[in-house]
Amino acid sequence: MTASYETVITGLDGNVLSATFHAPPLNLIGPEVVRDLVALLDELSAPTAPRVVIFDSADADFFFPHVDLTKVAEYTAEAAKAGGPGDASLGMLFRKLGRLPAVTIAKLRGRARGAGSEFLLACDMRFAARENAILSQPDVGIGAPPGAGGIQQLTRLLGRGRALEAVPTSSDFDADLAECYGWVNRAVPDAELDELVAGIAARIGGFPRDALIAAKSAINAISLPTPAEVRADAALFQQLVRGETATQRTAELFKQGLSPGAPPPSSRLERGWANCRPSIRPSTRPSQTVGRGGPLPHARERPYMETRLSSMCCTPVMPFTPCVPAEGS
Amino acid sequence: MTASYETVITGLDGNVLSATFHAPPLNLIGPEVVRDLVALLDELSAPTAPRVVIFDSADADFFFPHVDLTKVAEYTAEAAKAGGPGDASLGMLFRKLGRLPAVTIAKLRGRARGAGSEFLLACDMRFAARENAILSQPDVGIGAPPGAGGIQQLTRLLGRGRALEAVPTSSDFDADLAECYGWVNRAVPDAELDELVAGIAARIGGFPRDALIAAKSAINAISLPTPAEVRADAALFQQLVRGETATQRTAELFKQGLSPGAPPPSSRLERGWANCRPSIRPSTRPSQTVGRGGPLPHARERPYMETRLSSMCCTPVMPFTPCVPAEGS
Amino acid sequence: MTASYETVITGLDGNVLSATFHAPPLNLIGPEVVRDLVALLDELSAPTAPRVVIFDSADADFFFPHVDLTKVAEYTAEAAKAGGPGDASLGMLFRKLGRLPAVTIAKLRGRARGAGSEFLLACDMRFAARENAILSQPDVGIGAPPGAGGIQQLTRLLGRGRALEAVPTSSDFDADLAECYGWVNRAVPDAELDELVAGIAARIGGFPRDALIAAKSAINAISLPTPAEVRADAALFQQLVRGETATQRTAELFKQGLSPGAPPPSSRLERGWANCRPSIRPSTRPSQTVGRGGPLPHARERPYMETRLSSMCCTPVMPFTPCVPAEGS
Repeated sequence: MTASYETVITGLDGNVLSATFHAPPLNLIGPEVVRDLVALLDELSAPTAPRVVIFDSADADFFFPHVDLTKVAEYTAEAAKAGGPGDASLGMLFRKLGRLPAVTIAKLRGRARGAGSEFLLACDMRFAARENAILSQPDVGIGAPPGAGGIQQLTRLLGRGRALEAVPTSSDFDADLAECYGWVNRAVPDAELDELVAGIAARIGGFPRDALIAAKSAINAISLPTPAEVRADAALFQQLVRGETATQRTAELFKQGLSPGAPPPSSRLERGWANCRPSIRPSTRPSQTVGRGGPLPHARERPYMETRLSSMCCTPVMPFTPCVPAEGS
Repeated sequence: MTASYETVITGLDGNVLSATFHAPPLNLIGPEVVRDLVALLDELSAPTAPRVVIFDSADADFFFPHVDLTKVAEYTAEAAKAGGPGDASLGMLFRKLGRLPAVTIAKLRGRARGAGSEFLLACDMRFAARENAILSQPDVGIGAPPGAGGIQQLTRLLGRGRALEAVPTSSDFDADLAECYGWVNRAVPDAELDELVAGIAARIGGFPRDALIAAKSAINAISLPTPAEVRADAALFQQLVRGETATQRTAELFKQGLSPGAPPPSSRLERGWANCRPSIRPSTRPSQTVGRGGPLPHARERPYMETRLSSMCCTPVMPFTPCVPAEGS
Repeated sequence: MTASYETVITGLDGNVLSATFHAPPLNLIGPEVVRDLVALLDELSAPTAPRVVIFDSADADFFFPHVDLTKVAEYTAEAAKAGGPGDASLGMLFRKLGRLPAVTIAKLRGRARGAGSEFLLACDMRFAARENAILSQPDVGIGAPPGAGGIQQLTRLLGRGRALEAVPTSSDFDADLAECYGWVNRAVPDAELDELVAGIAARIGGFPRDALIAAKSAINAISLPTPAEVRADAALFQQLVRGETATQRTAELFKQGLSPGAPPPSSRLERGWANCRPSIRPSTRPSQTVGRGGPLPHARERPYMETRLSSMCCTPVMPFTPCVPAEGS
């Protein structure tokens, strides 16, 4: 690898490239991350590129929590540099990721929501830490359907019934439920995740490139959406996310503490929430969607905190009061 | 909601409509239920209709156990009022249900078989009580393939291998196996089912209508069968169910106690069976298909009763002897 | 059934045919097995044929471990006798299996790899013994993508993410993981497998033939690949498996002990491995893919043996040392 990246730490071990996203404080998908992704995908498209890539995050609490909603135009402009006309969307960028002549493995710790989830869905495999991985498509709660491939991939992976739960509820899914639904390949204990993924990557890295590419292409031909489908979803998202409803709801989210890419305390809600995650798993699967109807995606976190976290560090009062993070972030 | 219904109890809470089927004694799908469904779907198609609907049954033992086999012509005539020419089938009526501009959630207690299962499959989500939910497509055992969307939906949700188990075996599936196969979103303890579904409904009810409809339409475009596919299945069902084989087998079912819509004792088999369900779940998943080859779908219930129920209230003798229900129904 | 078979033991019980593969010492898929399969599928295509078939293996350790790699041309020539021009492949033979006017059930004990897995995938249902069933598509590790339907069926059954794990990793999957991913219908205890499958078969055998065929045809119309897709995969496999890379890797596999169809000791690796399987299941799911990058599919077995078998009978040293089988085979 020859390019240098602002938000990606890369490391090469034989035929396996590690690409670790590092965009503090929250690993938002903004112009810098997208610019680096465009360059990285270009490098990985070369015939001599590594045949396996492992994607993970330098922040164990945040893989990609969401896009930087204050810079949609900027990151979309960066995404447009990856392809031709009609490709000005994260959806088309992620479609290119799905068709790379390399096998891509996502290693998930922390939360991947919205386009963060859609990045993972474009990878070939997804393995998640059972203790703290969170997947979500909160887009409908904000006011638009997922626009970067989430509709296409989730419907094919989860089937109609579960896709029609995941997308309209905008709820957070933990790793076990994500495994049950097929959103990730498997949920594994955090302590086993690195070894599992490293083993898979090294094993594949020793296999013939031609066979790998031929197999992946054949599987993609059956399972990837068409460019027309991806473009239609992207256009609908871009139209609705700029509408009055989504604009108002986004503004309210910011008031509640959703980070616009700036450091705390504006990101209290997310950072605080994540720091308070329980160290011990509840014995029963959490009720993903017990929330009694708050109008915004983050309403989801209130009952979640109440039921799972309140006994540990959070005050279970409504309206939402973020707990005080341990390390004062 | 302005219409009044003979077999549906409706209640509105904000943006969420509850629709509870109440067609005693067995909640059979007959002309009255279908007439009400046609009217209800019309109401729910209006732009001002509630954006979420919860469907359940007033009878915890029977959601929709099956159609009224003595009134196929009558309920088909009612179904025909929902659409244009070519729509004279439950399949096309349920297709309309699947495309409603509202999010539909089915809450399953008791049994949903045949067109009852197909009604659920046309809803957007399905949640089932672990203790007593039963799903089945017994159509092949009667003499025809499922004709109201079951073939289409089950193949897409379960995959070829499991659809080719569910449909040819005509077997009952309990909630856990239905969750494992993807027939329902999730199996949850009966005591948690109401709160789970109410939470999901209220949450979605607070989200923008445009985003919900756009997301549902996009998911449907990928996952719903075409009208031609639904019509072909309906035509094949209607042809075979009127044939000699199915007619003979239906007559034999009636002799064994299958209800023609009348009250007990003609419905002993179903009512008795349901009343005898165990209050404690067996520790291992029941062998769904232990039945040693009886020619009719109800043969399935014999080993089921033997293995799961005999120690509680049923006499484990062959041929089938329905247990005496507790409340003398 | 009138034909006599060299490698298949058949038995008829009412409407249910049992077909047990018996091609010692390893049940490789070679010219004899394929010749018998062609004849058996012809018999089963007749209007008076049994309506249910159970396939299993006379060797509890090997269903079909793989094809006889020394006789690809010979068994392909046999497969060509099943159809017309363009059908000279196991893929097209297995497609014919998938479209039989009989319901087919595979009962899996031991390993089914490569075309062995693809044979199972062409059956209508698959049930696996939890203790010792192994499924794998090791083709990419050898140097070619699966060519007999595996790409098509696994992508549709498992979804893109899990198909892109199963095929590129070339790993062995045990029954529980195969059930979780949808590769088999269900994993059941070995002691319950026979009764489960016999019950399903007898039950279906009592149902009307017309309804069974109509239901299966309708499900196939949605879920089976087209002939063009199957032929394309077969052509790609045949091209790559004859290439330099695959030829070299196959030769190395033989050196390591992969059986060319001859008896032990050339099959030490497979026979020894299977005989050493643990009689008690580990409490946690094994790490399927812990292998640290050996270049060949059999590298997979090393860590498997280390982690699961070493404490029982195998010496956990690298390079691979097959354990001494108990019965001296």
